[in-house]
Amino acid sequence: MSQSAPAVNANANAVNAEPTRMSRTSIATVCLAGTFEEKMRAAAEAGFDGIEVFEPDLVASPLSPEQVRDLAAELGLTLDLYQPFRDLEGVEESVFQDNLRRLEGKFQLMQRLGVDLILLCSNVGTATSWEDEVAVDQLRRAADLAAGYQIRIAYEALAWGRFVNTYEHAWSLVEQADRPNLGVCLDSFHILSRRGDVSGFRAIPGEKVFFVQMADAPIMLMDVLSWSRHHRNFPGEGGFDLVTFMRELYATGYTGPISLEVFSDIYRQTESVRTAREAMRSLQWLDDAQAGEAPTHPTGWDFAEVRAAEPADLAEVLTQLGFEDHGRHRTKDVHLFSAGHARVVTNDRTEAPLEHAGGSVIASIGLQVPDPRTTADHARALHYPKAWRANRADEMVLRGVQAPDGTEVFLAPTSAAAPQWVAEYGRNDGGRVAGAAAPRDAGAGTEPAGVVAGDGLILGIDHVNLAQPWQWFEEGVLFYRSLFGLEAQVSNDVPSPQGLVRSEVMRTPDGAVRVPLNLIPHGLDPGRSSTTRTVTGQIDHDELRLKAAYPQHVAFLASDAVEVARRARARGLRMLPVPSNYYEDLAARFALDEAFLAELRENDVMYDRDEGGEFLHFYTRTVGTVFFEVVERRDGYEGYGAGSAPVRLAAQYDLDRQ
Amino acid sequence: MSQSAPAVNANANAVNAEPTRMSRTSIATVCLAGTFEEKMRAAAEAGFDGIEVFEPDLVASPLSPEQVRDLAAELGLTLDLYQPFRDLEGVEESVFQDNLRRLEGKFQLMQRLGVDLILLCSNVGTATSWEDEVAVDQLRRAADLAAGYQIRIAYEALAWGRFVNTYEHAWSLVEQADRPNLGVCLDSFHILSRRGDVSGFRAIPGEKVFFVQMADAPIMLMDVLSWSRHHRNFPGEGGFDLVTFMRELYATGYTGPISLEVFSDIYRQTESVRTAREAMRSLQWLDDAQAGEAPTHPTGWDFAEVRAAEPADLAEVLTQLGFEDHGRHRTKDVHLFSAGHARVVTNDRTEAPLEHAGGSVIASIGLQVPDPRTTADHARALHYPKAWRANRADEMVLRGVQAPDGTEVFLAPTSAAAPQWVAEYGRNDGGRVAGAAAPRDAGAGTEPAGVVAGDGLILGIDHVNLAQPWQWFEEGVLFYRSLFGLEAQVSNDVPSPQGLVRSEVMRTPDGAVRVPLNLIPHGLDPGRSSTTRTVTGQIDHDELRLKAAYPQHVAFLASDAVEVARRARARGLRMLPVPSNYYEDLAARFALDEAFLAELRENDVMYDRDEGGEFLHFYTRTVGTVFFEVVERRDGYEGYGAGSAPVRLAAQYDLDRQ
Repeated sequence: MSQSAPAVNANANAVNAEPTRMSRTSIATVCLAGTFEEKMRAAAEAGFDGIEVFEPDLVASPLSPEQVRDLAAELGLTLDLYQPFRDLEGVEESVFQDNLRRLEGKFQLMQRLGVDLILLCSNVGTATSWEDEVAVDQLRRAADLAAGYQIRIAYEALAWGRFVNTYEHAWSLVEQADRPNLGVCLDSFHILSRRGDVSGFRAIPGEKVFFVQMADAPIMLMDVLSWSRHHRNFPGEGGFDLVTFMRELYATGYTGPISLEVFSDIYRQTESVRTAREAMRSLQWLDDAQAGEAPTHPTGWDFAEVRAAEPADLAEVLTQLGFEDHGRHRTKDVHLFSAGHARVVTNDRTEAPLEHAGGSVIASIGLQVPDPRTTADHARALHYPKAWRANRADEMVLRGVQAPDGTEVFLAPTSAAAPQWVAEYGRNDGGRVAGAAAPRDAGAGTEPAGVVAGDGLILGIDHVNLAQPWQWFEEGVLFYRSLFGLEAQVSNDVPSPQGLVRSEVMRTPDGAVRVPLNLIPHGLDPGRSSTTRTVTGQIDHDELRLKAAYPQHVAFLASDAVEVARRARARGLRMLPVPSNYYEDLAARFALDEAFLAELRENDVMYDRDEGGEFLHFYTRTVGTVFFEVVERRDGYEGYGAGSAPVRLAAQYDLDRQ
Repeated sequence: MSQSAPAVNANANAVNAEPTRMSRTSIATVCLAGTFEEKMRAAAEAGFDGIEVFEPDLVASPLSPEQVRDLAAELGLTLDLYQPFRDLEGVEESVFQDNLRRLEGKFQLMQRLGVDLILLCSNVGTATSWEDEVAVDQLRRAADLAAGYQIRIAYEALAWGRFVNTYEHAWSLVEQADRPNLGVCLDSFHILSRRGDVSGFRAIPGEKVFFVQMADAPIMLMDVLSWSRHHRNFPGEGGFDLVTFMRELYATGYTGPISLEVFSDIYRQTESVRTAREAMRSLQWLDDAQAGEAPTHPTGWDFAEVRAAEPADLAEVLTQLGFEDHGRHRTKDVHLFSAGHARVVTNDRTEAPLEHAGGSVIASIGLQVPDPRTTADHARALHYPKAWRANRADEMVLRGVQAPDGTEVFLAPTSAAAPQWVAEYGRNDGGRVAGAAAPRDAGAGTEPAGVVAGDGLILGIDHVNLAQPWQWFEEGVLFYRSLFGLEAQVSNDVPSPQGLVRSEVMRTPDGAVRVPLNLIPHGLDPGRSSTTRTVTGQIDHDELRLKAAYPQHVAFLASDAVEVARRARARGLRMLPVPSNYYEDLAARFALDEAFLAELRENDVMYDRDEGGEFLHFYTRTVGTVFFEVVERRDGYEGYGAGSAPVRLAAQYDLDRQ
């Protein structure tokens, strides 16, 4: 694959010493928004080798077939496939004759376009009784007609095909028809949505696989037709095992193009150049993944940066939580607070959209990676835009990359010690009110001196919860997966007073980095972000306003959440109040010790339990729209507090309305 | 039902001479957005008699059970049901003992709330093997425990219940358990989503039906759990036959409350008072419909009113289509154009949001009804806001009502002659450029003199296509159904370059009035309309901007669409260009006569065919965002041109970008 990222680190499980790579990339025009011409230009701009011509796009276009052919040549795109042709085979002879007439019209059109491969979908409508022999004979006659036009036919089993709905069945018919210009098309959606067994690919000679269409999809329980038409997404954005699909495909000897065919309600509304780039990125990820090249995982958190309309309020809350105030940066208008390995930078630059929304945002996060340069190179290969901050010559420069939602992600080397950049902060903050510095005391911490800050109860950052505008949610999943190897856990819908929030946690296998992504309900969308978003990936004011209007948070891991809560309250922290009904319900759900329950209740600490472990956590009130959480994980509890998110959202909404 | 609308006109098919009416109305708090207190206040404000307490709403609320009880009393609401309790029955004895402990905790809570009925859902999780006898015994023991608290239990079969998923099965267990405080809850979603047979209700004595939950839903193919949790809607908004459900329910002798339980992604994001009013309206419609009282159908179109940033452009297009210019209104800044029975009023008031969007809107429509006063009274009974225009004493006053999307609907008496208000227009328009008046000529029309205007080819309005912000789409369906008896046809998704457009045609049985409603893709939503929409129903600037940003149109019925197109082109009309590829595809689909195809192509006229009839139609270019269509229906063709909408949307998008 020409745009492939440099090899990152070879995975021991790679199937071959020299893995097969994608020879050519293609994309169906239906994946992209806009006019046919815009779709073609977007595909070319993103570096695709070719496109599939989706007939309804051509029909609606003012470009003649000859103009399409010329434009493709000018853009350096091949026209790989004309699609779809429907309901040809398994029909009565009189119907078949009319079908051949329709088909021949398409062959003539394809000659004008210069396309030599047509996609034939298995019959979903007009076949009312079925005999394989009839279909084989009709496929053979269609192939013979096509041969006169030097055209090849790729036969595809639709998942909802009336009689033919598995690739094994489609291949059986093609094999029996036995014509050199008749082969199969393998579509990952149609196969994996029915939980097909891809190991059967090996029964098909590679040269009889005429085309391959790739799509991912979230695992959903719905009729497969609607799932297919509305909810496909690009490889790496969904839940299908496409890596095994690719490996089994290559085992056939297939060397043709890998094409994307994604029907998506979301991408239909997204600017085409942006979608095309995301599409290409998804193939780069897939190509690397099937070759056994996984991105290196981040090893931990470096920092989180919060920008708020009221930075002094942030400083107050952090110091109440036991964070040490390291003062202002030498040259920039930012302050550093730390507790254990948890570092929070507060940014004092306020901007119009933030003030307008009365909000705040998590502007950036810092991740520790084994080699920042390698990760940054990988980000560049995936065409993620760079994140950049002005630096003086003597300051540490962190490489950075911009996530699809506009959050900047900075890359620091893995280190158990405090990072060098901490030294750039001093207490010379010129009279800024930042709350009293937290007293150091023994606490429960066992961290090495020089790293531990605060009172030792807070150990580090546990997770950072980022709000995602609905248009970029799936791109966010691919971003954290392709660049950092984070994997998605099962998503769930959290009810809030303003709508359902879809939440999906992206995390490293060891849990060192966890990034829950929350899809913001449409009703909170302040505007046409999908159309105003710039192609370069710069976040625009509408989106900043959207993110600032929706709660996001940083969660800190503590050795004793109740003790952190108790001390913070003594320092005047305003916690998010937990309703008394919550504790009564807790008592009904778990048989908890009375004294323990009272302790939770007194400190507004919430509780959950899973198979082996326990979870204690509390929330601060929001500063603008950002808030903090303190979590304690006992005995390997892996969740985030079942049932607490709706209570939190209700409490935040309630306070917001007061 | 206390807020019931006055009887409109008795339907001959009514089952009883004295139909049963709803005795009490109730609504589950999960139907409404906001805090628990907001939900309660909204339900009371909308006139509900009671509510179902949805446990997660209570858990997340800062109100204590006693405060909830007091607030309900203050608001005049009864607390009809506590719900849900899950996974009680059909389990091992040790699990059952723990379940009883949980259940008793809920009974104590219910006593504090003052609720005496609990909803018990059939087991979906913990029942791993099943014998009816075990479940019967456990239900009986639970009922005996409840009896000590004077509490009743309503057992409901969830559609996805592991062993019990039909009301017949649930009733069989309840009947065997044989306890006076154990009955069933009938939920329309759980029954109709599985295509249950409601005639079996008659086997249940009415006094054993402890509760009834009503929800409608669009007919969808998806797993029933997701369908239930995300896509329910209020009676009259969806596709279930709830009228038969109600009649069969009353046949049991049931006299208890009719409660709404609607889980909806949309209503979760809608202001609670607005939703509560819509909910109450849906019960009013249902109550009337089951009693055999249907609203009177409109008999035809009176007019359509368009407001555009550039009114002179509208005048030009209409005169090119053959409309006669009747000049300006005596006192208002509006002009009238007519052709046959088609009347279009152009409104010259431009407003800031329109100019901002560069758009135009269909501001109002006029419908002819047998008795405007009756329809207006019905609208008031349903609490639809009034539409009103200032009038002088000597001017005709049309009663009006505001549709959920803000479109004003005015009511005129049925009449074959031109309405009186036409006389209020004169040609004294003070030098306004309105294009040349159209010449009258013979044409193909056969309309009586004095009514026909224009050149006789255009006969009247065929349909008016209204864009619906996604938040109000379902309310739009209920509006046209409850007030005018329009019925929804099957909806379909139309691909456009900017996203899928869901379209649903509301029409009278005779086709005299057809109103296609188009759901605008989220991506075009310019703002938080759901939160800024005022409760009184006044359209706000954001929504006007949204509607103005999306194409809407008025379609005229013609006797000869090609001839209208030919004359209009001669008068300089700029048609929406139809791509040549469209005609090539048409030739491939239908074996059309060459000369006929050439005639269509020359005039940018599109074509479709169904079982018996043919459809010819063309579009004008947009003025702002409003455009016109001319349609010819041959031999009873009933559709709107399959395949033409995507081509139109692409062409409009294309022109927009030029």
